[in-house]
Amino acid sequence: MDLTRAAAGALDAADPLAGFRSRFAGVAEDLLYLDGNSLGRLPLDTPAAVARVVEQEWGRGLVGSWRGWVEQSRRIGDVLAAGVLGARPGEVLVADTTSVDLYKLLVAGADARPGRDVLVCCADDFPTDRYIVAGVAEQRGMTVREVPAHIDTGLDLGVLATALDERVAVLVLSQVAYRSGALVDIAEVTALARAAGALVLWDLSHSAGAVPADLTAAGADLAVGCTYKYLNGGPGAPAFLYVRRELQAQLRQPIWGWFGNRDQFAMGPAYDPADGVDRFAVGTPPVLGMAAVDVGARLSAEAGIERLAAKGQALTELVIALADEWLTGYGVTVASPRAAARRGSHVSLAHPQAWQLTQALIDRGVVPDFRTPDRLRLGPAPLYTRFVDVWDALDRLRTVLAESAHASYPTERARVT
Amino acid sequence: MDLTRAAAGALDAADPLAGFRSRFAGVAEDLLYLDGNSLGRLPLDTPAAVARVVEQEWGRGLVGSWRGWVEQSRRIGDVLAAGVLGARPGEVLVADTTSVDLYKLLVAGADARPGRDVLVCCADDFPTDRYIVAGVAEQRGMTVREVPAHIDTGLDLGVLATALDERVAVLVLSQVAYRSGALVDIAEVTALARAAGALVLWDLSHSAGAVPADLTAAGADLAVGCTYKYLNGGPGAPAFLYVRRELQAQLRQPIWGWFGNRDQFAMGPAYDPADGVDRFAVGTPPVLGMAAVDVGARLSAEAGIERLAAKGQALTELVIALADEWLTGYGVTVASPRAAARRGSHVSLAHPQAWQLTQALIDRGVVPDFRTPDRLRLGPAPLYTRFVDVWDALDRLRTVLAESAHASYPTERARVT
Repeated sequence: MDLTRAAAGALDAADPLAGFRSRFAGVAEDLLYLDGNSLGRLPLDTPAAVARVVEQEWGRGLVGSWRGWVEQSRRIGDVLAAGVLGARPGEVLVADTTSVDLYKLLVAGADARPGRDVLVCCADDFPTDRYIVAGVAEQRGMTVREVPAHIDTGLDLGVLATALDERVAVLVLSQVAYRSGALVDIAEVTALARAAGALVLWDLSHSAGAVPADLTAAGADLAVGCTYKYLNGGPGAPAFLYVRRELQAQLRQPIWGWFGNRDQFAMGPAYDPADGVDRFAVGTPPVLGMAAVDVGARLSAEAGIERLAAKGQALTELVIALADEWLTGYGVTVASPRAAARRGSHVSLAHPQAWQLTQALIDRGVVPDFRTPDRLRLGPAPLYTRFVDVWDALDRLRTVLAESAHASYPTERARVT
Repeated sequence: MDLTRAAAGALDAADPLAGFRSRFAGVAEDLLYLDGNSLGRLPLDTPAAVARVVEQEWGRGLVGSWRGWVEQSRRIGDVLAAGVLGARPGEVLVADTTSVDLYKLLVAGADARPGRDVLVCCADDFPTDRYIVAGVAEQRGMTVREVPAHIDTGLDLGVLATALDERVAVLVLSQVAYRSGALVDIAEVTALARAAGALVLWDLSHSAGAVPADLTAAGADLAVGCTYKYLNGGPGAPAFLYVRRELQAQLRQPIWGWFGNRDQFAMGPAYDPADGVDRFAVGTPPVLGMAAVDVGARLSAEAGIERLAAKGQALTELVIALADEWLTGYGVTVASPRAAARRGSHVSLAHPQAWQLTQALIDRGVVPDFRTPDRLRLGPAPLYTRFVDVWDALDRLRTVLAESAHASYPTERARVT
């Protein structure tokens, strides 16, 4: 692999997605933003889309705009289903937060497996996933079985398989691990769980928009995910949930809000869950946030998830190659799977002073993020990160290390949160 | 009472809140918008506030803006606490939807009353309140006791008192009934419930911003409410929840999301609920929607809840007086409490063709709303509705009735929802 900056530039010149970069705000500035896996950039179409909802639909249309607003959750869900998730129409709903959606589907899934008293999750999964599992288990008197994961390479399917027995109701698992970037095969895990009679509730937060989920092909039953990372839906944007069509009529979620009712404006005496994915809705959708998700979802769908994934693999391949070439001598190790097919669109680098390195990089115009205890996470976003951005960011990291510039920064312990 | 249009104009001339009208979009148009109790108007400051969050904080600040965003829920909560709800700092959080907040606090409240197996709600309360109660009861094997309410005048406290016995864990009740506009006394009901050892979870959706809640003075324990009605926070704006300070440490809510954890970015192994009202948070707050709630909350706080309530009483007084004077002969009856102190800021009028009347009014530039089965609901918003608007709206309704213009409209049964 040619590791010159010119070679990186040549990859950009050949990149079929290169044109998407100019559709995002702020890219003309020098900032090397490698944190799109935490908060995606602002699409240029978004301010006008949000302003139109605020000024025209709310300001002028007032209550008359509800007709369109009540359909948004399903309409944007269908965009994600077709363009990003590999799901069918009527299987995806945009509503609430990832945590609330996870709770709803976890309780629904556990209810659908009566007599089973174990919930399984991964010990290194994102905190909200583990906490939600723990909360539901406590509420229902169930046991949590935490499957260990290697901090660098993720879950071992053999270890997972032994945890899936006849006591397991639901397994909660991220497609891409938030720390290591390790990718699991949805079809393979779904088959394992199904053989044990358990449901899998996927968290696609760290993969949606960067890696295909192919939910229908994989036979996936349940999923949720975040829209403000690779999907560029904006800070705190509403999350999505997916329920396989064949399963929808059997499942009931626990928060019986009026938006999940069959005819919400009939306001009848008893809750009667709507047909289809609408039954997983609860309250009034966040209309302003929806406008931004709409733009982000359509951008990813337009780019195509296969092309996004291919570029994500190439970008992270470059991160790894440069880290191996330049940083090994400074005690930096690659803490993500090396096989492209086993990796999402971010790479973690391990270093004892990862916190100080993060601060030093931020001061030098590079935005990575830090994940406790010793991980520097680099998330190049296929829609707008260039290969030269990756090269420049790693080059600055090399310089910081060479000059020990990070040594003058306070340790994590000293940070004010 | 002088019922001439000139007299209504004189009330506007003497209105201390008259200046607030010019701070809302669309008021220069002829539309007589009497549906602010469903969706409040757009404050003129909101588009710029939202655009600033989108373009500056998200577009330029990117992840660096999180420091401010994570504090929004509590910061705006404190504005509502001081300016609208009569609560203390650190008792109100803006997060999730009203339905989700209701669920969280209802489960938390029921957990705090172990051994009690009954939840009480009002048979004529807003659907989502009744449905959430039913769902929680089913999940926990509890019984729901529905207290009847008079469709015109609301709840009878004597009837309520008999429903509150030693089996009751939580009573869920709206301060203002969504259909009749009937207002209950929070202090009085709280005392009744406390005597029975039960908690009250208030829904302030139909009263916040129009009627004082005085939560601290009333000794209220738990409350939730909507911000997109009288608080003008925008369609699907995040809701608020209130937990009395002395109760916070004893309560745990069931959805253990990372935003409710003590140090969310430590991402530790176990969920450990934050101190204070933060423990009732779940996932990432909807940042775009928050910007709009912020403007709306500050406008109501600036106007002052006592002045808003006084004007709301005067506006609805005028609705009732004009309905009595002009509409009785057409079979319209006032279906709301006649005593101003027993009423929120909306009035329902009953008429067998209420649905057709609603459609006829909309075609004549008046926006009321319809509530099944036969109610025409008029919600003048004290911040921007003028007395002459009320006069003109009732005058148009009188004309519709006099000309039987509504008779040519299809019945509700024919509506497409």
